Amino acid sequence: MLWVRFEHAGETGFGVLEGDEIVVHAGDMFAGASPSGSTISTSDAKLLVPCLPSKMPGLWNNFHALAAKLENPIPEEPLYFLKSPSSFLAHGETIKRPASYDGPVVFEGELGIVIGKVTKEVTPQQADEHIFGYTCVNDVTAAAILNRDPTFPQWARAKSFDTFGVFGPCIATGLRPEEVSVRTVLNGTERQNYPVSDMIFQPARLISLLSRDMTLVPGDVIACGTSVGVGSMKEPENTIEVTIDGIGTLSNTFVQ
Amino acid sequence: MLWVRFEHAGETGFGVLEGDEIVVHAGDMFAGASPSGSTISTSDAKLLVPCLPSKMPGLWNNFHALAAKLENPIPEEPLYFLKSPSSFLAHGETIKRPASYDGPVVFEGELGIVIGKVTKEVTPQQADEHIFGYTCVNDVTAAAILNRDPTFPQWARAKSFDTFGVFGPCIATGLRPEEVSVRTVLNGTERQNYPVSDMIFQPARLISLLSRDMTLVPGDVIACGTSVGVGSMKEPENTIEVTIDGIGTLSNTFVQ
Repeated sequence: MLWVRFEHAGETGFGVLEGDEIVVHAGDMFAGASPSGSTISTSDAKLLVPCLPSKMPGLWNNFHALAAKLENPIPEEPLYFLKSPSSFLAHGETIKRPASYDGPVVFEGELGIVIGKVTKEVTPQQADEHIFGYTCVNDVTAAAILNRDPTFPQWARAKSFDTFGVFGPCIATGLRPEEVSVRTVLNGTERQNYPVSDMIFQPARLISLLSRDMTLVPGDVIACGTSVGVGSMKEPENTIEVTIDGIGTLSNTFVQ
Repeated sequence: MLWVRFEHAGETGFGVLEGDEIVVHAGDMFAGASPSGSTISTSDAKLLVPCLPSKMPGLWNNFHALAAKLENPIPEEPLYFLKSPSSFLAHGETIKRPASYDGPVVFEGELGIVIGKVTKEVTPQQADEHIFGYTCVNDVTAAAILNRDPTFPQWARAKSFDTFGVFGPCIATGLRPEEVSVRTVLNGTERQNYPVSDMIFQPARLISLLSRDMTLVPGDVIACGTSVGVGSMKEPENTIEVTIDGIGTLSNTFVQ
């Protein structure tokens, strides 16, 4: 199923995408929801971020191909930062250059894991049932900020400008992530196309390890890290799309 | 005024501390609240964290004395990480060693700034009216994790274990932070006692600069960074207290 959140006639709701319609649901997306009886055409609704994460850990150096290209060692443990909730942006919305930053703004197409249950110190075997589904993530980054201070790498800041935490358009349940690829298209040209199976810390192991650090809660999104092909968005106006088969396409505009 | 949140008879509420009583309020702590007419003895209530931050940026290298001691350069811009909301812990609760970590667990007594209004791209002059008040922070840190991976400093992780984001006991309004000191007492021995006036990025300038990166919202807490005297909590059971005159004492136990 493809879960979405939406705004329609001034109200916020959620439901399941079926073709061009949203089958509106009532209840709790994670704890039990059922059809309310109404449907809305997607053309009448504005899609919101498909859930409201209390936190979004983002992985660094989590794909073998990118580690090899950058000559980074394979990490012994998941290496991650946190993206601020104030950065979250939905499908169809506009990524904006911060007023205070004139360096390159980089797209990073990624798989996002959406947590469905309170998750603390679970084994990899238990982790699967704590995963509600998967979404597309564009982990937008102010690349020139990352290492400009020699004493302190600014991961949280470079990743947390308003509009830089892009995810959606929906949450797909029942996806087998090891069978899909992440494809990123900038202004009509494919820039990334990498298999999720190349991931260093695969979803179940990743959730298990993260859950030893911090309790994950329903709606939290883990941005799994990116692979080869990232780059900056240089045109005055750019269209950036992240597509994962079985989820859909997360499409946004970036305006300088 | 000293604002608190509490649990009493199974209900969550908020109000103003007056001696040994909480004057219960209704409404919104940040948008307008008024006395509900009832009072509760503090001995009958369990204090909760005094607000529910959507995010907690934490400053690194923000005091001249500690920068000098560690021979760190004075930073050109605020350097910060984000602490996960899953780490938040109230006054009186127990800080716990993570099951997966056997290294030093360090206390860091700090001033916390509590945001009262939506804050985006404000000037230092405007920033003051966006500050609701101040609280005490203990920015607990798994110090051995910070730099154990040579390729990626793990700030978010070292600072975000469950129970490591300690703040409270209340939010003090009307405080003049430049006039107060932060005092940290471990097992009865004073370990930190430093003036907030030694801060490199003072509150109004700090909020102005942060607000150019990310929109701050009511209840967000900025942990202003610590100064000299931090150390690890080594006893099987430790009492750790952070006191700021005009706010009060944030007291917790750390159990190995």
